[in-house]
Parts: sequence; C-alpha cells; structure tokens
Amino acid sequence: MANIQQIAQEAGVSVATVSRVLNNATSVTQKTRLKVKRAINELNYEPSMLGRNLRKSESRLILVLLPSISNPFYNEIINGIQNSSIANNYNILLCETDSKPERENIYFNMVKNKLADGVISMDPTVNMQKLNELAKNHPVILCSEYEEGGTIPYVTIDSELAAYQAVKHLIRLGNEKIALISSDEKFLYARLRRAGYERALKEFQLPIRDEWIYHTKELEFQNGVQAMRMLLQLEEKPTAVFAVSDTLAIGALKALKAESELPNPIAVVGFDNISFSNMTYPTLTTISQPMYKMGYLAVDMLMNSMKDEKVESIVLDHELIIRDSTMW
Amino acid sequence: MANIQQIAQEAGVSVATVSRVLNNATSVTQKTRLKVKRAINELNYEPSMLGRNLRKSESRLILVLLPSISNPFYNEIINGIQNSSIANNYNILLCETDSKPERENIYFNMVKNKLADGVISMDPTVNMQKLNELAKNHPVILCSEYEEGGTIPYVTIDSELAAYQAVKHLIRLGNEKIALISSDEKFLYARLRRAGYERALKEFQLPIRDEWIYHTKELEFQNGVQAMRMLLQLEEKPTAVFAVSDTLAIGALKALKAESELPNPIAVVGFDNISFSNMTYPTLTTISQPMYKMGYLAVDMLMNSMKDEKVESIVLDHELIIRDSTMW
Repeated sequence: MANIQQIAQEAGVSVATVSRVLNNATSVTQKTRLKVKRAINELNYEPSMLGRNLRKSESRLILVLLPSISNPFYNEIINGIQNSSIANNYNILLCETDSKPERENIYFNMVKNKLADGVISMDPTVNMQKLNELAKNHPVILCSEYEEGGTIPYVTIDSELAAYQAVKHLIRLGNEKIALISSDEKFLYARLRRAGYERALKEFQLPIRDEWIYHTKELEFQNGVQAMRMLLQLEEKPTAVFAVSDTLAIGALKALKAESELPNPIAVVGFDNISFSNMTYPTLTTISQPMYKMGYLAVDMLMNSMKDEKVESIVLDHELIIRDSTMW
Repeated sequence: MANIQQIAQEAGVSVATVSRVLNNATSVTQKTRLKVKRAINELNYEPSMLGRNLRKSESRLILVLLPSISNPFYNEIINGIQNSSIANNYNILLCETDSKPERENIYFNMVKNKLADGVISMDPTVNMQKLNELAKNHPVILCSEYEEGGTIPYVTIDSELAAYQAVKHLIRLGNEKIALISSDEKFLYARLRRAGYERALKEFQLPIRDEWIYHTKELEFQNGVQAMRMLLQLEEKPTAVFAVSDTLAIGALKALKAESELPNPIAVVGFDNISFSNMTYPTLTTISQPMYKMGYLAVDMLMNSMKDEKVESIVLDHELIIRDSTMW
C-alpha cells in the first residue's frame, strides 16, 4: 500500500502539504487539495487513523465491561449504550470479562494506553481497587452495579426497595412461606435484594428460614432449575419464590412445570423483565428495570465526565409487572 | 500527565533512550533502564499504545459485525469468537449495525484506518459490495451468513439440508399441512431454509400453499406470536409449523398456548437451539447449530487470512434435537 511520501511525490507537493489536506487544514489552496486527493485515489492510499488519533489523543471508543453477554438483561442496556454512543460520535468496545481478572487487565491496559477514552462497567465481579485506580486518571461510570460508599459515579435502581416490594406482593397474595433464590452474595445486588426480602418478611412477622434461601453460582437458567428442585425436596416447602433474576425465575418455573405432584401452584417473582419473561408459561411476574434508559444515561454521564464536569449518580425508578406466575 | 520528554529530563537521558526502554530494546544498560523506570513510576507516565501500535502497524483488535445482540443465537457464537481471540492475543470490537448502513460505514472506516486488523461479519444485512471492496485489502471472514458464489471465506452450516430434515421430521409424524414462518427473503438463510422446506414437501407430494408461508419483518419473539396468530385465523389451518429461528418458534408456541380451542396441538420446530429453547413449555424441537465452534473457527480463519495463507470455507454439521413441541 502507498505511504504518505509516495502521495506527496505523485502529487508533486511536500509531505506536510499532504498531511494538511488529510487534516482538512484551511491553509491549502483548492487546486493543491485536488492534486493531493487525486494522488490519494490513484494510489489507493488509506491514512492510518492510529496516527491521526495519536495527534488528537482520543480514540472515540468507549469500553463497556460486562461479565457475560448470555444474560439477556445486558442486551437492552447495551442497546441504550450503543444508541447514545453513536449519537455522541463514539463507538463501543464490548468486553466480556467472564469474571476473569486477566481479561480485565487487558481491557484496563487499553484505556491506560489510550486505545479507549473511557469505561462503562456493568461487571459485578470487577476488581474495584483496580477500577478506582483507573478512575483517577480516566473517565469511568458504573452501570447497574456500583460500589457502596465509593467515588465512581453510577446509574442504577433501588434493588433493596424493589425486592421488598416484590416480596410484599407475594405476602399480600396470602403467602407466608416465601423462598429466595439468590446468586453469590459477593455481588452487591444480591446482598441488597436479600435485604429487601428480609425487610418484607420481618415487617409481616414471617419466618426467615435458612433452608428457604438458596444461593446459585451463576445466573443461567439451569441454576434456577437446580435451585427449585432443591427447594421442592424440603419437607416444609415454600408456597412462593422470589428470584433475584429472571433467568433464575424462568429456570424455577421450568422445574415447577416438571413437578406433577404439587397440591397448589407455587408463585414465582423474577427480577429484570427480560423480553423472554413474557414468553414463558405461565408468564413471569417480575420487577422491570429501565434497562435501555440506564445504558443511555451511563453514556451521557461518561461524556460529562470526559468534559471534566461533576457527575452525580442516578437512581432510576423500577416497576412491579404482575403476570401469571403469581396467580396460576 | 507526564510526556516522554519529561521522563527523559527526570531520568537524565535522551528521549531516544526512554523510547528504547519502552520498546524493551537490548541496547540499554541495566542501570539506565532502572533510572528510566524509576522516572516513569515517579511521574506516573502511561505510554500511548496508539503510538506503539502505529509503529507496529497493528491494533490487535478484531471487528465483529452483527445485526443485533438481542437474538440469543449470536451469544454463543460470540463466546467462541471471544475465547479464540483471547487465545490469539486479540480483543474483539463488537459492533451492532442494527441493519443501518451508516453504522457499517463507521466500522468499515475503522478497519481502513487501521484501528482494527480484520473483520468477522455475522450481519445478513451487510452491504456485500462494500464488504468485498474492504476484503481486497483487509482480512474478512463471514460467519453463519455468506455470499453465494462470493470470494470471502465463510464458516456456516447447510441451512437448506437442515430445513429439509426438520420438515421431513414433521411429515414422518403424520403432518400433511405444514406451515413455514420465515423472515425476510432478502436474507440468504431465509431463502435456503424455504428451499429445504419446499424440497421436503415436494418429495412427499404435499401441497406448498402460499397462505401457509408467513414472512416476518424481524426475528423477535413478538414476530413469531403475530405469525402464529395469522396462521390460526386461516380456514384451513396447518397441523405443524417450521420456523426459521427459535425466537420465532418460541413466539409461535406462546400464541398456541393462548389458543384454547384447538382440537389437536400444532407441532412446532425451530432453528438454532438457543438456551431458551429448552425452557419453554412445551420444550422446543429444533435444529442445533454448532454456534460456539462456528465463532471459534471464524477467528482461526481470520488469523490465517492475516498471515496471507489461503483460507478455505467450512460447512459444519448440524443436528435435529427432538423435544416436546413435536409430540405434545
């Protein structure tokens, strides 16, 4: 491929003039500009954006960290991030960390090395110490997951309140034995949703029993199936279940459908309102998070952070969506 | 932040020496190396990878084009691409084109401008003329979708054969009135799957009726619901349905469950074997594509293409997974 020197030679101008044309400088005459453009076309020259970005010192890329794209919860958030980024003339680098620190390092180094201009992290397993270190010199926003008492701005919902309302709904339907299917409590959202679950039970003087609280390792459907099977083996079975994600709740429904000997249906509430939650049978009662909006706002916050403006954290509203799984 | 000049001054060496240390040149004494590293630490200097990559003229990034991340079909492929990329010391740039040409242009320009080293396209709506143009000077691999008679190497499955087998399964179960829920036939996979559907019907001298072929605009669940509702309104209803994606098939199941007046259950076969397909009630009979392997191989092919090796296209095996939706 041709280089800038060959373009200059072909056009009969200096390398500096070619560079000025490439950078749309106004100090070049129309005639010279045309000569250079003709040489660029003839030699099929493609200027390196790496070189251009080096001069401007920006990559126009946003790095988006997420643990796994297989949870549909992230899909809608990413749609919001994508649309907002494009509107701001940025592209996104979607980075699955798969909860592996060595992958995080690769991506953090990209920001340090200026291959990306900022970070939006949705990864609940992210190494907060390293992320805080990065945030000292680079724009970083937390989306959905955040650090309690931390300094990095975030956009999220009130997980504790949402869980409290979900469980209160189950209590109002007459349930007194309510189980919790949660994920690993190293995640803040899992701790908060458990706190909401316990607050509702305490308020109505209902028992909080360890055997009704099941922790899964991951958020795959299969983990929900497994959790429900365990709960169904208990001598004293719960009459209702609150799961901290729709994927777990959908797995729980699947295990319930396979069980033919239940005297009464067990009510299930999920969390997220992923699109599939309306495709299950019965359809899933769930907490709806404003996922698209959350992603969209995270980019707005990042843009403000890049301009060195003060960025305030945002807590968005959620909604309880009542469907068939609490009334079948 | 400190620049390379300040590091040189702090360390009492030349800029060229700092550069040699940063590039791990062997011509620097241990003592000088330590002086420079101390200065780098003290001034909190972060060398720009943009500058480094410019010298090496590679970005270590692979651009992955897909129409939308909301179809879970792509999730498993992306897992394969991601793992294979990491193993090759590459990162991926996941680019949702949302079938919008202006977004494609942004991403193609990134490759032309050397911000990415190659492209894997899974986008059935991609502008093939532009992609072929790009492929003249840059490594490009097609994954899942491909161009008939085209020159860009691809990895895919035999969609026509898979559809033929799916429909033959429905015929063997005794169905004679078989509907097709397909997407837009501007997509090659839709044309091929329709061809397989028609081949099976012809082989068994069964009618191909236009009113039993429904085309959806997109591949969302809701499009499948809508399609099934239309088929259920026909005077002569089909007894079985083949849908060209699991998302459409799951929507069709949803519409069937809502219909209480059917004398006999309508059998449904999907295509892809996404993880949801085993969570529905009834579980979905479907064609399993080796999605992870497809993604993994696409990266291998791209790596070979980058080394200017000849790359042959690959057609992988599929499987018919028989579940409850064809026997409820």
